[in-house]
Amino acid sequence: MRDIHILDVSLRDGSHSMKHQYSEQQVRDIARGLNQAGVEYFEVAHGDGLGGSSLQYGLSAVDELKLIEAAANECTDSKVAVLLIPGIGIKDDLKNAVNAGAKMARVATHVTEADISAQHIAYSRELGLKTAGFLMMAHMAPTSVIVEQAKLFESYGAEIVYVTDSAGYLLPDQVTERIRALKENIGCEIGFHAHNNMSLAMANSLAAIEAGATYIDGSLRALGAGSGNTQTEVLVAVLQRMGIQTGVDLYNIIDVANDIVAPILPRPQEISGSSLIMGYAGVYSSFLLHTEKASKQFGVDERDILVELGRRKTVGGQEDLIYEVAQSLRK
Amino acid sequence: MRDIHILDVSLRDGSHSMKHQYSEQQVRDIARGLNQAGVEYFEVAHGDGLGGSSLQYGLSAVDELKLIEAAANECTDSKVAVLLIPGIGIKDDLKNAVNAGAKMARVATHVTEADISAQHIAYSRELGLKTAGFLMMAHMAPTSVIVEQAKLFESYGAEIVYVTDSAGYLLPDQVTERIRALKENIGCEIGFHAHNNMSLAMANSLAAIEAGATYIDGSLRALGAGSGNTQTEVLVAVLQRMGIQTGVDLYNIIDVANDIVAPILPRPQEISGSSLIMGYAGVYSSFLLHTEKASKQFGVDERDILVELGRRKTVGGQEDLIYEVAQSLRK
Repeated sequence: MRDIHILDVSLRDGSHSMKHQYSEQQVRDIARGLNQAGVEYFEVAHGDGLGGSSLQYGLSAVDELKLIEAAANECTDSKVAVLLIPGIGIKDDLKNAVNAGAKMARVATHVTEADISAQHIAYSRELGLKTAGFLMMAHMAPTSVIVEQAKLFESYGAEIVYVTDSAGYLLPDQVTERIRALKENIGCEIGFHAHNNMSLAMANSLAAIEAGATYIDGSLRALGAGSGNTQTEVLVAVLQRMGIQTGVDLYNIIDVANDIVAPILPRPQEISGSSLIMGYAGVYSSFLLHTEKASKQFGVDERDILVELGRRKTVGGQEDLIYEVAQSLRK
Repeated sequence: MRDIHILDVSLRDGSHSMKHQYSEQQVRDIARGLNQAGVEYFEVAHGDGLGGSSLQYGLSAVDELKLIEAAANECTDSKVAVLLIPGIGIKDDLKNAVNAGAKMARVATHVTEADISAQHIAYSRELGLKTAGFLMMAHMAPTSVIVEQAKLFESYGAEIVYVTDSAGYLLPDQVTERIRALKENIGCEIGFHAHNNMSLAMANSLAAIEAGATYIDGSLRALGAGSGNTQTEVLVAVLQRMGIQTGVDLYNIIDVANDIVAPILPRPQEISGSSLIMGYAGVYSSFLLHTEKASKQFGVDERDILVELGRRKTVGGQEDLIYEVAQSLRK
């Protein structure tokens, strides 16, 4: 009996922190641990989802289908989820993931672009996958837009809609407002995915639960992009203290985090100056490299550039704007 | 104009993480940075307060009076605070600290023992120090007791009373309840000191502010005992986004954290399995070593020992109980 469904993203969002270099053995070990600890779902894919392995997003060390299969083979109870961003991944990737053992798909779009996911969500349902829509950069749209986009996901067949704080920007009250509005306006279940750039991943996850979310993402040792995610083993401890059932064994999940994940971390998941500014500004961490260059070229503090990019609600793909903003700030 | 007074404890609680090995130059550099960033107060002392340097609590590399003096010499605006735990420190330590340049004293006792602080608080006021009472392990007493103890502090002359979540145990609602009760029942200002063992330091600090606290502790890069404290530079960013004035410059404080503190960290301030269990159980981190020994001796999971010690509200000085608990759990 579970009140809250924890979905662990160590093997997907955590892939960013691992620079997409997970070995098959590492995936097998973590998957076995998650399964033994009783984690209901965990996601396996390139950090940018199925098909993400590329020069642009970073090449994976091992083909993700091999990793999905390795993970699925360790599962007696847990189910493997995959993430698909239409445009990066294609429908065939979903079919291949199912053949490799995936049981759930999360179709992810920018917060204003749910309409590009219709086919993928429908196909995911057709394949028999538990299917979710995943609204990224959810701080960039007002609540009314989030409700409208969630309704699109629902109309395509999504069974869960996630609010995704990709930049770790949201404050707890803003999470409450978004989740509550979804709860009042859509029929499917609601999920929340936090990032810890402002040290609020746990606070925001609790706010989401209180407002009606039932699916919460976490990652072991907080392994994920930026400052990482809600720390799975800590989430289990906090919810256990609150009397909320997750079905996860606390000691077992701590053992996976400490004994399997901690030793392979390339760097600890701290809140550094740059990840803090990402969260404060509300921009993608992929902007950082270009911003550093533009900062040097135009002699402008990179933090001012990032804050201005956030103010302009700049999204991935608009990297050219970074130089334009730097130039305008020099004046 | 400040809505919230931030007190940085990197040079006191952070001393635990540094194993009390701060050099005079490091203290000088951090103090200069804090002063430039506009931090109103920062604390300098052994992790266990004035007089803490000892075989029992760990020997400091440099005499704390030298460190206080070095820090005070860097201050044009910031004020140096010291912590004193009666029994570890004595009244003369306060006088020496004043001579070295301290402007504020926080007199700390276990949550039920404010009555041992009467002389120290009175003497601190006599010395012209801004004076606070600091209730440690605040999760161990119900709110009614905290109010009663705070009233004692107030009656001795304390101008601020702190609720101190030494073990990182409290949930946000529990912080709200405690701070709100103080707000309703005492006249002096209210402070809050968090630890991040349950990933709730920021959430709890915000809950405290919302309930009426005006003094909030933080530390750079979260440097402190257990999983560390509320991360000062992140707190500044979060409060700035909320429109709450702290008087601290965001970019400057990030620079101190990144350029001065991060390079000297002996280890990053993560939430490890053992610090998580400390917070979950609500026990002092000083119990860990004995618990490991007892665990091996009696073949009992050390986490079970810690949870049972927490349930029994065991405090520092009762280390013998650790073996007794381990033995009883073996049965």
